This record gives sequence, C-alpha cells and structure tokens, in this order.
Amino acid sequence: MGSTTATALRSAIAKRDVAAWLRSFKDPAERSHQLAKCSADDLRALGPLLDSDGATELFESIDDELTAYVLAAMAAPDAASLVDALDLDHAADVLRDMKDTPREQVLSVLPQIRADVLRGLLSWPPDSVAAHMVPEALTVRPDMTVGEAVASIRGDAATLRSDSRTGAYVYVTDDDNRLLGVVAFRDLVLCDAQDTVAALTNSDVLSVSPLTDAEEAAQALVDYNLVAVPVVDADNRLLGILTENTANDITAEEATEDAERQGGSEPLEVPYLRASPWLLWRKRIGWLLLLFIAEAYTGTVLRHFEEEMEAVVALAFFIPLLIGTGGNTGTQITTTLVRAMATGQVRLRDVPAILAKEMSTGMMIALTMALAALIRAWMLGVGPEITLTVCLTVAAIVLWSSFVASILPPVLKKCRVDPAVVSAPMIATIVDGTGLIIYFMIAHATLSQLQGL
Amino acid sequence: MGSTTATALRSAIAKRDVAAWLRSFKDPAERSHQLAKCSADDLRALGPLLDSDGATELFESIDDELTAYVLAAMAAPDAASLVDALDLDHAADVLRDMKDTPREQVLSVLPQIRADVLRGLLSWPPDSVAAHMVPEALTVRPDMTVGEAVASIRGDAATLRSDSRTGAYVYVTDDDNRLLGVVAFRDLVLCDAQDTVAALTNSDVLSVSPLTDAEEAAQALVDYNLVAVPVVDADNRLLGILTENTANDITAEEATEDAERQGGSEPLEVPYLRASPWLLWRKRIGWLLLLFIAEAYTGTVLRHFEEEMEAVVALAFFIPLLIGTGGNTGTQITTTLVRAMATGQVRLRDVPAILAKEMSTGMMIALTMALAALIRAWMLGVGPEITLTVCLTVAAIVLWSSFVASILPPVLKKCRVDPAVVSAPMIATIVDGTGLIIYFMIAHATLSQLQGL
Repeated sequence: MGSTTATALRSAIAKRDVAAWLRSFKDPAERSHQLAKCSADDLRALGPLLDSDGATELFESIDDELTAYVLAAMAAPDAASLVDALDLDHAADVLRDMKDTPREQVLSVLPQIRADVLRGLLSWPPDSVAAHMVPEALTVRPDMTVGEAVASIRGDAATLRSDSRTGAYVYVTDDDNRLLGVVAFRDLVLCDAQDTVAALTNSDVLSVSPLTDAEEAAQALVDYNLVAVPVVDADNRLLGILTENTANDITAEEATEDAERQGGSEPLEVPYLRASPWLLWRKRIGWLLLLFIAEAYTGTVLRHFEEEMEAVVALAFFIPLLIGTGGNTGTQITTTLVRAMATGQVRLRDVPAILAKEMSTGMMIALTMALAALIRAWMLGVGPEITLTVCLTVAAIVLWSSFVASILPPVLKKCRVDPAVVSAPMIATIVDGTGLIIYFMIAHATLSQLQGL
Repeated sequence: MGSTTATALRSAIAKRDVAAWLRSFKDPAERSHQLAKCSADDLRALGPLLDSDGATELFESIDDELTAYVLAAMAAPDAASLVDALDLDHAADVLRDMKDTPREQVLSVLPQIRADVLRGLLSWPPDSVAAHMVPEALTVRPDMTVGEAVASIRGDAATLRSDSRTGAYVYVTDDDNRLLGVVAFRDLVLCDAQDTVAALTNSDVLSVSPLTDAEEAAQALVDYNLVAVPVVDADNRLLGILTENTANDITAEEATEDAERQGGSEPLEVPYLRASPWLLWRKRIGWLLLLFIAEAYTGTVLRHFEEEMEAVVALAFFIPLLIGTGGNTGTQITTTLVRAMATGQVRLRDVPAILAKEMSTGMMIALTMALAALIRAWMLGVGPEITLTVCLTVAAIVLWSSFVASILPPVLKKCRVDPAVVSAPMIATIVDGTGLIIYFMIAHATLSQLQGL
C-alpha cells in the first residue's frame, strides 16, 4: 500500500484539507510514513493548514524527532503557534530534538511567559528527570474542604494542562508550595464535600529530586506501581511531575538503546527508517574497528602456534566450532544479565549468587557440549588424541566463557559503565583469542605429535 | 547489606509483626530478596499474619511469579483469603503462575462468584489481551445527566475495583452492555451536573477483540497514547479493559523475551535470580546444540580446503578475524532491525528501504574494514597476494553479511516467526561457514600458489 497512500497527505496539502486526511489516516505508523515522504515545500505548506487541535492530535501520534523535523521545515510563526498548542513537556521534548537555529526561531516568536517556561525545561540536563517532567500539577491546601478543593481544581483545570494522567493525583502543598502529601483525584471527587482535604491526604509520598537520572525515576514509578511521581527541589518545593506514559517512553527508549548496544553498535537516537547510511556508518564503525583490532590478536595467537598447525592441520578444522561455542555461551549469559540489571531484577550484591548459578549451569553445559564434540570428532574421523583435545577444549572454553560473561556486566556496572556495552560481538571477541590459547595449551598436553615442539 | 537484612523478614515472622516490616522495607527489590530467602515454613507462617491491605501492598510491589510461589507455600485457606483481596486481573495473573494443584486448591476455597470470574479469565489463551484485562469497567448510559452519572459511578466505585487507572475513562453503554463511546472521568466530574452524558461522549473509540494478541493491543495503547483500551466481543459488548500499566508490563516482558532470544537463548519466563541452573541449562542447551551442528559445517568447509591451508598456512591466521567481522556486521543490523520491528517502527512494506539503506551502509563499512585489513596484513608481513585476498574477502563478507542480516528478520516475520530468534550467535554462525567459502574462493582466484590446486 506504501506508494499509493504515501501521496494522500501530499494531495491533501495541495487541496488544503488536512482535517479530512487526519480522519482517514489514524494509524500512527501510516501517518509517519506519509509525513516522511513529504518534501520541504509540502511541510512548509502544511503549517498554516493545521489548527491547534489537528496539530495536537497529529504530533501526539508521531514521534518527537519527526515532529521536530516537520516543524523545522515550516515558517517560524507557523511552527511556534503549533508548538504553543502542545503540552509543555511535549513541546520541550520536541524543541530538544530541533537544531539550535530553528529552536531559537520558534522560541523567539512564542509568547514570552511560555518561552521562559520552555527555556527553563530545556536547561535541565537531558538525562535528568526534570527534563521530562510536566512542570505543573494540580495542587490544593490541606485546610480546604473537599468541596473547596474540587472547585479549586475546576478553576485550575481551565488554565493548567490536566488530562487523565496529570490529573490522576492532586498534590497537597503549603502556601510556600512545599509538598505535604497526595490525594487521588477520584477519591477527592467521590468523597463527601464536607470532609477536609487533610483527612484524605496520604503524606507517605515517594518523590524524586530534579537531577535524578530519568531512567531511575521511571523505574521507581514502575516498581512502586504509580501513575505519577512528584519532582521536588531540595526544600521539598513541588517543581512538576513525571507521568506514567512519559516514564514508559523513557523505559522503552532505554530498552532500544540497550538492544542496539548489545548488538555492538552505538544507539541510533533517531527512528531507524530516518537514519541515513552515513549516520548508520558512524554509529557502527567505531565498535567494528575496535573489535577488529581486538580480534586481530587471534592472528597473533595462531601465528605463535603456526608449527603446531603445520604438524596437525586437523586442529584448524575445529577452530570456528570451538570459538563459536565459547562466544555463544557467553552471549547467552551477558544478554540475560544485562536485561536483568536494566530492569532492576539483579543488583551488585547478587554477584555471588550469579556466579554460583552460572558456574553450575556452565558445568552442565560443558558436559553436554563435550559429548556433542565427541560425536562430531568421531564423525570427522580425526583419531582419539585430537578427539580428546577437542572435547577437553570445548568444556574448558564453556567454563571460561561462563566465568567471563557472569563477571563482566556487574564489574562494568560497578565502574559506572552501562553493562549493555558488553555486546554479543564483544564477548565473542574476548573468548575467541583466549579460547585459542586454551585450545593449543590442551593440544600440547594431549597430542604426542606436539610433545617435541 | 544482603545477609544482615535478609533475616529481617524471618525475625518479623517469628515476632508475628509483619506490618512493621512492611513499613521498614519499601523497596520492591529488597522485599523480593528477603521473601526469596524465606523457608517454606516461614512462608506458611506468614499467611495468617498478613491482612488484606498488607497482602495487596506486598503483592503489588513484587512480581507475579514470586507471589505465586509465596502463596503456594501457604495453607490454601490463607492463600485464598489473600488472593481474594487482590484485584481480579492481578489475582488471575498470579493464579496463572501457580501450578495446577495449588491453583485448584485456592480456587475451590474462594467465594463461588469470584472463583467463577477468575476461572473465566484463566480460560482465555495466555497470549490474548482478554487474559490480561480488568474484567469490569465503570459504565454509564447515554441518557443520564452528568449528575446522575457521577452518582452512579459513586455507587459502583464501592463494589467495583476502580483506582486512578481503571477509573480514568467511563464507558457509555446501552442496556445490552454494547459499547457506544467513552467519556473521560475528569471531564464528567468537572462538567455541569445538568449536561447529558451523550453530549460529552466520544463515540470514536478504539477497541480490541478478546483474542487480539496481548502485545499488539499493548502496542496500540502506546501508539494511540491511551490510558485504557476497551475489550469488546463480536457483538460490541464490553468485556473489560486493558489498562496502561498492564500494557507496559506486557511490553517490558516482551522486551525481556526479545533480549533473551537475541542472546541465543529461550526466554526464561521467570525472574533471573529464581531460575535454577537446571532451568537455565534447558533454556540454553537447545540453541547451543543447534548452533553447534550448524557451526560444524565450517569444519567440513575447512577440510575441503585442507590442501590450500597446507600450501599457505598464513591463510589460517585470518580466519577468526574475517568471520568475526562478518558476524559483528550482521549482529549490528539484526539487533537494530529486530527492535525496530518489535516497536512497530519498521514493517514488512519497508523491506526495500531497509535493503537500500543497509547495502549503502555496507558499502561504506566494507571500504573502511578493507582498509583496516590492509594495515593489519601489512603488519603481519604476509606479502601482497595474501594481503589482497584478505582485503577483498573482508569487503565481500561485510556485504554478504549485510544482505543476509537485512533480509532475514523481515522474512521470518513474514513467515510468522518471531524475528528475535535471529540472534547474534545465529547470524554469526550463518556468516562463519559462508564467509569461509568466500575466503577460499577469493584465495583461489588471487593466490598464485593455489592456481594448480
């Protein structure tokens, strides 16, 4: 369907009727696909055709990078009026993805107050929870009655952003905006109007500081099963809230970055289909070259054992099999561990438990794979001595690989390096060279032809 | 801290004061850790010490598998009264993770009506959205006024489960429970009491059928930025709702399963720290043996080229480097693609775009890696002919690997196989053997010593 519908947006723009297009195409992926096919001129023409509601609906259904790209193509006043229609946190996310020049152009055309709030949000470090918070929340005072509180919320709801998520909790604050507690919006409205807010307030509220790592805050929200987490400064003043859907975006993005790191690549940071070959090359070539250099030492190892290989060329047949098995065993362990650490299931204190578990499993796997190697060597008919060498080597490599793979992710975490960098290619490369050394050492000990070398 | 605090729960059980323990230890990971250290006798003694609120708080903070394990250790009447305190969807998730015998014991002790509802939920296929829905929702009739609707919700709220999430939307249904539309709870309560529900109703509501794949429904909820999605039968009757936090649990679990598949292992399905070595062995050994058999053909390839290796033993030095580079290039591509497909960023129609992108990138990477290989071969001093062979081979392997890795995940998806099974070890294994064939074919064409063979 790609090519036939891809032009639907372009003809809607030409006909100046984007509202009908929004009604016909609701699938976010389809919308993104069509937007990505538009020329810069199309997007410029799109600007004046979108109203606030249309812009909000469109930009909530597509990702922030694409929104930033679309807005950057428009005239600054058009873009600014569309940004103005977005929720503050969404607007900040989009502006963060724009290049400096168009971002400044948009900010300079926005109403002063709104531009200041957005500049404030943009000034937080991108990895901090404050950069992702909604910088406003529904608040009530503890001495209000429920009736007064609902009336106050009704007034606020007109000016503040408050959808079902940001409005799920109402925060109880003192006159100085210090956080005293929280009350669920629905408890408030379903209670007797004469009750006081103080009686309903839960003062045992989890909050985070603005510079908390966004991923940590998101994980806390998930762990404690919350709809929103308040962000407070050092004096416990309420700055904003992290909502569940933002937390999930953060967690999903982190899962994508981890997956890319695990594949031995730098995170792309843009959706795959919009990554140019040049960007893909830059994100990948660093690790490829590093792994190439690391892998090159296997050549040195092999060269060192040149005489052995010339004496018993059958030893070479098993090289890919042996180092492959070592790499596979290690990859299984690191990917499981990295994910368990990312979701908070495994912590540093669990290292002894991990090692005990993985070395026991490694022992069982070593035995099974040695048996498989025995069968394979017998099928190749390489004789009992080489068969023994291969069986012993596969067991030793499995155990060695299990040890390295269990220890490396927690050690990196301890050193404050993302354990996801222990990619499948990296563990395979580490095990390749060391595995070859193990192989030739065992060969020396078991093969009579090599005793003299 | 592990060993000193791990006994805190055990001594709380001995002192028969679990409420104080719940107040002292709020961190979900710490609670799980301590629970996992308890003996079966401890857990049995824990049963009567937990009240409904304590059980709800405890079991909402830990995962379902651990909850199932803890409940299974208790006497059936104790376990049943705790299950009865949980929300229906949570209770169903926990029961699904119990073995048949303890599950039946708990169900037989539960109040009949509740047991029937739970059996109904448990009878849906585990991968369907119906198995994960909350089987109840707040509903109002379109001809009610807002005042009547709020009064009706207030009545329902006492009997139905309705926290901030399940209560975010109120569904408008006819007398036959057919879904007519939706109204946000907060719009309802903040409106004038005299308005009619019909005037506020949004009839353009996304719904899913009960047998929809749970992951697809969860992805739709995320894509359309919703707090809940209604589940309706073929006659459009409202069966329940999928909530945002359940959708996120499903998405996160899927990300974990994909990560484990990408590491060349079957998904564990239990939290890592509770997986026994025996379970780890079973989940891993299948792929290891399959890859071992697949990798074994590299031995056959090498054996076929035995004469060539005996003539030019230096060819063997580069084997790990060349096949390693091929595996790394392929792994980078498949992991990125698999994740992009899992998050719905890339679809089958994008295959031509993927191929164009990856082959252009592959060309640039092939050139860069050939240059790196030139430097390495020159450092090893293997002479111009082998240098040429190695450079040509690395470029050819990179291109071949890029092609295989770009095409394999979409082809599997087309065949309805989870593309995440294209693990790093699998792509490395595929490229190892074919890469060696490419290597020796190029060597034959370029090396004068091999011309006669």
